[in-house]
Amino acid sequence: MREQPWGEDEKLREECGVFGIYDFDGNDVSHTIYYGLLSLQHRGQESCGIAVSDTAGPKGRVKTYKGMGLVGEVFTADNLAGLGHGNIGVGHVRYSTAGASIRENAQPLVLNYIKGTLALAHNGNLVNTPELKRELEHDGAIFQTTIDSEIMAYHIARARVHSGSAEEAVKLAMRKVVGAYSLVIMSPRKLIGVRDPFGFKPLCIGKRGNAYLLSSESCALDTVGAEFVRDVRPGEIVCITRDGILSDSSLCLPPEREARCVFEYIYFARPDTKIDGVSVYHARVAAGRFLAKDHPAEADLVVGVPESGNAAAQGYAQESGIPYGTAFVKNSYVGRTFIKPSQESRESGVQVKLNVLKEAVVGKRVVMVDDSIVRGTTCRRIVKMLRAAGAKEVHVRISAPPFLHPCYFGTDIPSEDHLIAHGKNVEEIREALEADSLGYLEIPRLSQMADGLPVCSACFSGKYPIAPPGEDIRGDYIK
Amino acid sequence: MREQPWGEDEKLREECGVFGIYDFDGNDVSHTIYYGLLSLQHRGQESCGIAVSDTAGPKGRVKTYKGMGLVGEVFTADNLAGLGHGNIGVGHVRYSTAGASIRENAQPLVLNYIKGTLALAHNGNLVNTPELKRELEHDGAIFQTTIDSEIMAYHIARARVHSGSAEEAVKLAMRKVVGAYSLVIMSPRKLIGVRDPFGFKPLCIGKRGNAYLLSSESCALDTVGAEFVRDVRPGEIVCITRDGILSDSSLCLPPEREARCVFEYIYFARPDTKIDGVSVYHARVAAGRFLAKDHPAEADLVVGVPESGNAAAQGYAQESGIPYGTAFVKNSYVGRTFIKPSQESRESGVQVKLNVLKEAVVGKRVVMVDDSIVRGTTCRRIVKMLRAAGAKEVHVRISAPPFLHPCYFGTDIPSEDHLIAHGKNVEEIREALEADSLGYLEIPRLSQMADGLPVCSACFSGKYPIAPPGEDIRGDYIK
Amino acid sequence: MREQPWGEDEKLREECGVFGIYDFDGNDVSHTIYYGLLSLQHRGQESCGIAVSDTAGPKGRVKTYKGMGLVGEVFTADNLAGLGHGNIGVGHVRYSTAGASIRENAQPLVLNYIKGTLALAHNGNLVNTPELKRELEHDGAIFQTTIDSEIMAYHIARARVHSGSAEEAVKLAMRKVVGAYSLVIMSPRKLIGVRDPFGFKPLCIGKRGNAYLLSSESCALDTVGAEFVRDVRPGEIVCITRDGILSDSSLCLPPEREARCVFEYIYFARPDTKIDGVSVYHARVAAGRFLAKDHPAEADLVVGVPESGNAAAQGYAQESGIPYGTAFVKNSYVGRTFIKPSQESRESGVQVKLNVLKEAVVGKRVVMVDDSIVRGTTCRRIVKMLRAAGAKEVHVRISAPPFLHPCYFGTDIPSEDHLIAHGKNVEEIREALEADSLGYLEIPRLSQMADGLPVCSACFSGKYPIAPPGEDIRGDYIK
Amino acid sequence: MREQPWGEDEKLREECGVFGIYDFDGNDVSHTIYYGLLSLQHRGQESCGIAVSDTAGPKGRVKTYKGMGLVGEVFTADNLAGLGHGNIGVGHVRYSTAGASIRENAQPLVLNYIKGTLALAHNGNLVNTPELKRELEHDGAIFQTTIDSEIMAYHIARARVHSGSAEEAVKLAMRKVVGAYSLVIMSPRKLIGVRDPFGFKPLCIGKRGNAYLLSSESCALDTVGAEFVRDVRPGEIVCITRDGILSDSSLCLPPEREARCVFEYIYFARPDTKIDGVSVYHARVAAGRFLAKDHPAEADLVVGVPESGNAAAQGYAQESGIPYGTAFVKNSYVGRTFIKPSQESRESGVQVKLNVLKEAVVGKRVVMVDDSIVRGTTCRRIVKMLRAAGAKEVHVRISAPPFLHPCYFGTDIPSEDHLIAHGKNVEEIREALEADSLGYLEIPRLSQMADGLPVCSACFSGKYPIAPPGEDIRGDYIK
Repeated sequence: MREQPWGEDEKLREECGVFGIYDFDGNDVSHTIYYGLLSLQHRGQESCGIAVSDTAGPKGRVKTYKGMGLVGEVFTADNLAGLGHGNIGVGHVRYSTAGASIRENAQPLVLNYIKGTLALAHNGNLVNTPELKRELEHDGAIFQTTIDSEIMAYHIARARVHSGSAEEAVKLAMRKVVGAYSLVIMSPRKLIGVRDPFGFKPLCIGKRGNAYLLSSESCALDTVGAEFVRDVRPGEIVCITRDGILSDSSLCLPPEREARCVFEYIYFARPDTKIDGVSVYHARVAAGRFLAKDHPAEADLVVGVPESGNAAAQGYAQESGIPYGTAFVKNSYVGRTFIKPSQESRESGVQVKLNVLKEAVVGKRVVMVDDSIVRGTTCRRIVKMLRAAGAKEVHVRISAPPFLHPCYFGTDIPSEDHLIAHGKNVEEIREALEADSLGYLEIPRLSQMADGLPVCSACFSGKYPIAPPGEDIRGDYIK
Repeated sequence: MREQPWGEDEKLREECGVFGIYDFDGNDVSHTIYYGLLSLQHRGQESCGIAVSDTAGPKGRVKTYKGMGLVGEVFTADNLAGLGHGNIGVGHVRYSTAGASIRENAQPLVLNYIKGTLALAHNGNLVNTPELKRELEHDGAIFQTTIDSEIMAYHIARARVHSGSAEEAVKLAMRKVVGAYSLVIMSPRKLIGVRDPFGFKPLCIGKRGNAYLLSSESCALDTVGAEFVRDVRPGEIVCITRDGILSDSSLCLPPEREARCVFEYIYFARPDTKIDGVSVYHARVAAGRFLAKDHPAEADLVVGVPESGNAAAQGYAQESGIPYGTAFVKNSYVGRTFIKPSQESRESGVQVKLNVLKEAVVGKRVVMVDDSIVRGTTCRRIVKMLRAAGAKEVHVRISAPPFLHPCYFGTDIPSEDHLIAHGKNVEEIREALEADSLGYLEIPRLSQMADGLPVCSACFSGKYPIAPPGEDIRGDYIK
Repeated sequence: MREQPWGEDEKLREECGVFGIYDFDGNDVSHTIYYGLLSLQHRGQESCGIAVSDTAGPKGRVKTYKGMGLVGEVFTADNLAGLGHGNIGVGHVRYSTAGASIRENAQPLVLNYIKGTLALAHNGNLVNTPELKRELEHDGAIFQTTIDSEIMAYHIARARVHSGSAEEAVKLAMRKVVGAYSLVIMSPRKLIGVRDPFGFKPLCIGKRGNAYLLSSESCALDTVGAEFVRDVRPGEIVCITRDGILSDSSLCLPPEREARCVFEYIYFARPDTKIDGVSVYHARVAAGRFLAKDHPAEADLVVGVPESGNAAAQGYAQESGIPYGTAFVKNSYVGRTFIKPSQESRESGVQVKLNVLKEAVVGKRVVMVDDSIVRGTTCRRIVKMLRAAGAKEVHVRISAPPFLHPCYFGTDIPSEDHLIAHGKNVEEIREALEADSLGYLEIPRLSQMADGLPVCSACFSGKYPIAPPGEDIRGDYIK
Repeated sequence: MREQPWGEDEKLREECGVFGIYDFDGNDVSHTIYYGLLSLQHRGQESCGIAVSDTAGPKGRVKTYKGMGLVGEVFTADNLAGLGHGNIGVGHVRYSTAGASIRENAQPLVLNYIKGTLALAHNGNLVNTPELKRELEHDGAIFQTTIDSEIMAYHIARARVHSGSAEEAVKLAMRKVVGAYSLVIMSPRKLIGVRDPFGFKPLCIGKRGNAYLLSSESCALDTVGAEFVRDVRPGEIVCITRDGILSDSSLCLPPEREARCVFEYIYFARPDTKIDGVSVYHARVAAGRFLAKDHPAEADLVVGVPESGNAAAQGYAQESGIPYGTAFVKNSYVGRTFIKPSQESRESGVQVKLNVLKEAVVGKRVVMVDDSIVRGTTCRRIVKMLRAAGAKEVHVRISAPPFLHPCYFGTDIPSEDHLIAHGKNVEEIREALEADSLGYLEIPRLSQMADGLPVCSACFSGKYPIAPPGEDIRGDYIK
């Protein structure tokens, strides 16, 4: 699972998590969404929101609460109670980029249109936003956010004027938008789940008593005591009503064209999640095993960089036979409001988040496993800390290939010149990290770690499943 | 001026205040807007917001900050600084109704449309909202707020697709909307001020150095050190650009059709404001004089119910020759977070907000002047307090006629059955208030107190300047 | 009543207000204390606190809540409920000086000693603190605050070891301490009220049903629905128990030695308070009348500087026959968190707190009445504003003599060189204020305005009722 | 390291952590103390505080900031800056019991006494508090807190009247107080560190450049970039002045009488700390090895209950040869403000804090290692979760003996009837936990895990190094 305090400058960030529930019997879905969002918090820490409705109430009465910050900060017993007694609802967590970390962009997007209300929670990024937006503007549209979910909502609203049902309008909109999207949509009497035809982002279905749930990750189903039913298929629209689940697969592509984001397996998703039948934990252990096969090391100890490096480190240890151990103590009290040490303090050795267990590493040749390197600053610092604590050798193993290319589908990768791998070969990177050896996961291993499922590995390979957009549409499309 | 702590259940509430500035030289308009809004705070205490732009910067970069609460609570040195260095901006204060006191409805409404960005601050209420909205919905529009300002914005955006300038688009939109509106609109390079043809709500122009300002009330111009230039005329569009002020009067009506809200003179506006050439303070003193002529009393002391009754009380004293005095002490520390006394406490005499100066009233026949009576509860309580403090007689004089009819133009009047004057003649009201005598301002005096200007007095007389809407569109149009 | 927003740099500040209640029947005294403190808020805005106990509960269980800020900010429904069901309690408001505005100094001081617990609320300032403290230190005492109330508490605790009752211990302590003090003390089964022999600070007794109350001012008794019983006499100890009120007057001085702080009548106390039988409102009106007699003016209008100048202005108008009017509009929304205009803004005319009613003063000769001048900056600014608004002449009348000397008894007077009157005669002050004429209340009028009661006027006359201390002990005694 | 979110009902709590620094060159010790306290946060989460002084400034000017909550919540850049430029300071973290979690009890205790000021930070619990307090009361002392540190402070103050130096006064006070205490004391020109003669609580000395530091644990020295110098010896007083470190060992006992709290090794201290020469991490690994020897199991996987069970689990795996793995995913976003699931929700399976990695445990016989069991509720729930996830067998191993006796020295152990081990033998406990087997660490292993150092294991064995007090003085001595 993602750790917040340590290495935030070093980690890539997921763009969102979505959650929805339709409880045919119950009337307090807001708490369930709250716990669901807590379990998806690693997918976005910028803002969060919950929208709730009561299918038995007046049509189109949606109560919403959104705010900047973590789920546990934004929601209180009071404002959760203020969401009232609804039996259908959606929730969202969003991650924080510098530019557009504004409340207006928090989701779910709740809106009024010809057929009443719609609430929409979106994970992913569209690639034809500029064209779509231009078209709408020429019809006199106004935009109150800078998220492409609003574009999606507009297209659904326009399609709805002439189509017979909300799900049909969604389908018409899907024909126009291109890119990555997993959506949970609440209309007055329906809960709709959608995954784009490439299946970039995960989405699955759960069941608890007489309620159906939709969630970005299966771990959130465990948390709320629901059982996993199945994944929404890439390209599928599922529509949950009192009559059960209706599925429309007419937009699905041939399986070989699917392109799941492999970084969900490597780092984004929680290890206790399964995506399209593959355990994230197992995928990480497998990556560690591949690393041990492809990049063996003579060493005395295998350690993971906490928390996300631990599973791969265990795989490495299992495959190599080198003992697995703990080398680091992380301070779990270093939260978001923590006052960062000044540059001067850092130079004089102040290091608040992580400490090395000297006793565990002194005199040893250490294999240090991490899930990825972005800028390299943190990795280099940790190598240095291990040596200062007495490690004789430090062998760095990374359970992902080097980052080299931008992502247009919802992952925030810094510009090329900030990537340590940009313009350097592995030996040069090793030198920059001051490691004794360095091994990356090989690109062919990516699909193998996902049990052979087709994955998108464009950020490593530069091979995009959809042509990258002409304009740079990453982040907010309105600069 | 309106007092917040005392009698909030008793007072009518204005719907909004607007403010705008275009400083051709400066680059820090946000503080000026902040001080302007502080001076318009009596027009709305629910939410407030500021949007700022820099005409020299990239087109359409608008920085906005909005929040629930008072100007002095919502804005901090930090978030004001976060609005950056702009030379053009608009601000808004909004008042709080129960139902839709949600952050989504805070203004200015900032949006992106075909020509970049638009920020819109609106005071007033449209009467043909349902038709306008239905038309938009059928074209696939989505609505993210429940304020009619969004309808107005849509119509401007749609007109802008084919019109040559923002002000022309505003004019086209004005041809479609019907009702009360004073608007301040910021486009990337212009500041536009608009007042509806009836002139329901005030709007005036100020100047400070090389800057032009727009404000609901002239008192805010004093506050920021600007000089009053003139009022925007009913029906006029003024467009402030680097080339100066352009005026379009083609939508103005004949002066006799104008219909200023007379309640601005009676209670809403600050006494140090002038509206269309008439001093609010003088209008109130005049109302007091009229009351003394039309409803004289044998008494020893004239007192005002603080603060808003004081000016009329002075007028009454001047005309009648009865000495003016102070009878009440208000606790100015009773703010919004104050814990209200329980019913039980109130019955046992706990009264936190207002106390009577026994020494001032004991043994005296008192004329008590207030600006209006809505439900009558507070007025009755004060009469009782005066008697308990030893007043021999209490003669109530009200510087407005009795409220009998709903307002569709932006004033929040409770439903008829909550109005003390509903179904009662003056003698019956007097009895209900337990006063020794009662006199209201006569309806013909309304226009006289405004120096003969044509006013809207529909809430008193039932004669509406525009036909009331078929559906009840008061408050939020989405119920 | 004191106004917070305007002129805070200009006004002297009271040091505290105290409140206590013993309800023989009830069990929820905390709300009563809360409303009492709200009505005493003008006596101190730095910090406040409430301590509550239940005489039926385990001996010495006192629940306390204190905090920095206003009563309405510090106390919430939750923390007030947290004070539990007690039938006896004390409350305190304290004012804010720069240096020692720390939470440790908030009162009531709650402590544990040989006989259980004691809670103590103190208004005033001792003059022999250094000697008292030195003596205690030599016995190994430790001090956790920098308020002299702690010294007082120590002496009570030490006296209690050998004395038969709490009130006897209080009396022994009173024999050691010298200075100004009105105290409300809660022991496990008693509520004790004390006023120093000079009677510097007020304290009165109230009754409501089967409860007795003690309060700095009688206005707080009105607020909570209690009736005024009588003032505590200078030097008297009253002890409220289930057996009624016991009084010990053995420390009282001959009446002619009493020395009430005259500034309570001039400015500190609320106008609806009576102190030692004299109405504060009447005292202020009388001061205005004296001013009119001693310093008449040829003028068209008498106005008060709001709020505190209004009563004296009415007295001046009554005596002189010149009409009383309103010249200023104060913005009541300018609270404590308000962002102050920069020097530059102020120079360009930004004035947020106060505006002049031009219509009321233009072309007129104005008598402007205020209660006092400290530094003179604000007064000068207001004179200038009146002229800018069109006043032909401005005649300043002050309902107090010039401040010239320090106060050692609990009023925070700036050092001499900050006082406008220091080293200047009245003509020179007038010139500094740019007024057309200036008149101060004459010193002999001080006792007259208090119906002949002996008062302390040392800050004006330099004649101290107690020898001033050798060391400067104003403010915190620990520098 | 202690985890906050999970199992808080299950874990014992340390009473405090202390930190001090005297920087002969520097003048910004507050940030260093802040980072030090962050690293000691696991020792107390109720309240925290920092007191800072400048030896070059006026004698006895101490700036203090304290508050309820975590270090990262209480301290902001602003209030840290407000502590000013000091070169000597102390800090404290305190843990939360229900009854006395009040701000008055936050430390450091800062006080004024005969020789100026003293700031005192205390970890531990005295056993003769009632006698000490009674004696002081009879001399007229007053108490403003309910912590025994105030008693300690009084005795130092009284001793100081006649003794030649602060450290001598501390020594005299140590002769009177009995119990557990590690103290850091700041006088105007000295930093003093003290450990009680039994050495219950740790305290060590560090050095960074020209600064000396005192800290409860060595991990905080690592964090601030200081090097470990040595432990303060049980019974030793170290006095740090500009002349260096002076040591007074005259109160030290023979080593065999020392009685370090063994629970520091088992659970309290951070694994990267060394206490009296013994690595906490190694002690825990050793405990796991002992468990494997004394309580072997036939199993496929060894897992630790995160985080604190992991080190012992690794020891168990190493000794037994059974593979070590991860079975749990903890949600690190579940903070203190998190809304707890209702009983009903928990029963329907909502479990927010911890999830089992089904893939890792399914079909396996699992050894689950935890550091201790208090009530047993959590342990039982985890066993159940492992089985629900598919574990074939669950063998519980606890790296401490069963808790059976109260602690009087600063550890908060629930009353006997809440302890699962009370009145049950191991087989009965196993049954209650529904585990397949259960093994506790044997009591003789306790000293072995601490490399043979004499330890206090009274909570397991009932053999107290000091006679337990006649009255129950645990927690606050004032009930």
